[in-house]
Amino acid sequence: MKDLPVGAIAVIFVSMRTETDPGGYADAATLMVEKAEKFPGFLGVDSARGTDGVGITVSYWASQDDALAWKRDAEHSAVRDLGRDRWYRWYRLHVTQLLRSYGWSAGGAGGR
Amino acid sequence: MKDLPVGAIAVIFVSMRTETDPGGYADAATLMVEKAEKFPGFLGVDSARGTDGVGITVSYWASQDDALAWKRDAEHSAVRDLGRDRWYRWYRLHVTQLLRSYGWSAGGAGGR
Repeated sequence: MKDLPVGAIAVIFVSMRTETDPGGYADAATLMVEKAEKFPGFLGVDSARGTDGVGITVSYWASQDDALAWKRDAEHSAVRDLGRDRWYRWYRLHVTQLLRSYGWSAGGAGGR
Repeated sequence: MKDLPVGAIAVIFVSMRTETDPGGYADAATLMVEKAEKFPGFLGVDSARGTDGVGITVSYWASQDDALAWKRDAEHSAVRDLGRDRWYRWYRLHVTQLLRSYGWSAGGAGGR
């Protein structure tokens, strides 16, 4: 990911998966990332889920309006409803604004 | 976690582990969380690491000064140096400030 500008929006989505998967989660997650990438102001995404079921996805946006437009997308909203029905036990969402940012890499490039 | 107040600091740490572990990572990670919890202004932490080696840890703080005091802790700094030597291929760190926050839970409690 390129460096993030100060003032960028980071949306932190922390979730716990259901213990049984009725199906569709992986496809929906891939589709949502592919769709988000085409939205104006999308700067990148980081995602990780551990074996305990806790996952964190952080999406980065140029502005609050850009993040809101993605939130309000009809298909995204429909998938969110599915998520509550099928895939998540709970989630929390934190909308934050970037104050500063830095990276380090073993290769010396300051992050990927 | 209790609700986060608007203006709280969220420090997003995204990292890629080395492929081989020379040892000590799990113990150091546990120790650092236990120590951070005792710092003034610590509000909580979320953490996940997937099988691809990418991990995300978000720590939440009441103020920038509280987050900085933790950053400057001598033991924390020493473990960070170890991390660069041993455990990480790269990392990025984003210091952000909370604009808004909400949760949902299948039980209706609005998140754990």
